Amino acid sequence: MRVALTGGATGIGASVAAKLKARGAHVTAFDLNEPQDNVDRWIETDLGNPASIAAATEAAEGPFDALINNAGLPPRDGLEALILKVNYIGLRTFMDGMLARLSPNAAIVNTASRAGAMWRDNIEQVKALMALGSMDKVPAFVAAQDIDAVRAYNLSKEAVIALTIAGTEDMIARKLRMNSVSPAAVSTGILDDFLNAFGERAQKAIARAGRAGEADEIADVIVFLASPESRWIKGQDIVIDGGISAMLTSDMLALRP
Amino acid sequence: MRVALTGGATGIGASVAAKLKARGAHVTAFDLNEPQDNVDRWIETDLGNPASIAAATEAAEGPFDALINNAGLPPRDGLEALILKVNYIGLRTFMDGMLARLSPNAAIVNTASRAGAMWRDNIEQVKALMALGSMDKVPAFVAAQDIDAVRAYNLSKEAVIALTIAGTEDMIARKLRMNSVSPAAVSTGILDDFLNAFGERAQKAIARAGRAGEADEIADVIVFLASPESRWIKGQDIVIDGGISAMLTSDMLALRP
Repeated sequence: MRVALTGGATGIGASVAAKLKARGAHVTAFDLNEPQDNVDRWIETDLGNPASIAAATEAAEGPFDALINNAGLPPRDGLEALILKVNYIGLRTFMDGMLARLSPNAAIVNTASRAGAMWRDNIEQVKALMALGSMDKVPAFVAAQDIDAVRAYNLSKEAVIALTIAGTEDMIARKLRMNSVSPAAVSTGILDDFLNAFGERAQKAIARAGRAGEADEIADVIVFLASPESRWIKGQDIVIDGGISAMLTSDMLALRP
Repeated sequence: MRVALTGGATGIGASVAAKLKARGAHVTAFDLNEPQDNVDRWIETDLGNPASIAAATEAAEGPFDALINNAGLPPRDGLEALILKVNYIGLRTFMDGMLARLSPNAAIVNTASRAGAMWRDNIEQVKALMALGSMDKVPAFVAAQDIDAVRAYNLSKEAVIALTIAGTEDMIARKLRMNSVSPAAVSTGILDDFLNAFGERAQKAIARAGRAGEADEIADVIVFLASPESRWIKGQDIVIDGGISAMLTSDMLALRP
């Protein structure tokens, strides 16, 4: 199995690379930084830069059996435009560039987030982002829509979920399939960014689940969605949150007697 | 790994049993009929009969690492009350009886259905079914609510999804977890029941996905949800439909440019 993975140097991506290597896969990582372990080839890639993305997809040696779009920036003040560029437009541009390098029946897995769960409620803004043709329009979009770092992050992940759904029919026509995962808080190097950005609500959710998730718990699901075992799952977002969403839904709808 | 499985004789359940045996698991099947293959022990069980359920859970030798509630009746005229009894109340009663026989960190997987997707829209009727204390109240409920076979089937699966969500917090407190799967049309011995019941809409959906799902495609996801690889997924319903739901959602929200 040959796998293309964005963001393999740290966090969830590094755990995905480790699990894939343990299964004997050949892993090509696309990252700004060189992964220390578990990667057969590193292609330096800046997902916030269209020229870098074009060079990276050009340099990639397929065909790949899976494409895992995992790289992303956390909510951090001052990075609003870059978050939208990297997490959404860069992901989409990279994926489009990789389509010709995928094997028949290849799986695409996108890392979204529970922070993108409100994508339907924000559908007009999501569509506006999806309709931006290129990255150079992002700063004006951020200014016009008064988007702060938390909103930029949430919006980027909402758009990843919507893209995954919207792309289903085209993927089927290409004999590919695409799904996403939506982790809640995960113990990685960027957990503090999320705790700072989302505040007490995030702390309460973690307490209710018992703890934050672990990178390897998310990675196991990503590997499953990249594998033939999940072959009839298409266009779905899999929430991996230790039960937080279900408990909130149960409260909201008063499901428990 | 020791697994308790309802409905292991045919269809998706038989495929689950085969996959579990291939992994070296010990499988106890609870079914009306004796499974021909891949089962270490068969306990004759009628999920429409509380006495049979009580005897079966009493006879079960745990502890089990997974409980897979897969048995169910398809929509078939005249079976309205039995569908609600077996697919929902029997499932819940059996599960309650098995809780004491599960290992720490055991996983419960319930087979729901895409036919249960409208559970939120029908939440009042779902709650009314969930509030029925016992099976003997089902016939009066069916009559009072004028429930036909298709509605009985859909309602039973809506309630399974709601039960899975509602049970999350209790499961966490017990160090267990529970999820469900929602297959669309699957090529099994009861596919014709679904095609007759759901008519042209089902045919169109199958055509758009390219074909119906296969039992082993659903079984692979059930086995994943029963396994430690999915350990941080709790209270979720995983849709396995070859992209049908995503394509319908994309149409409805006009997600494609």
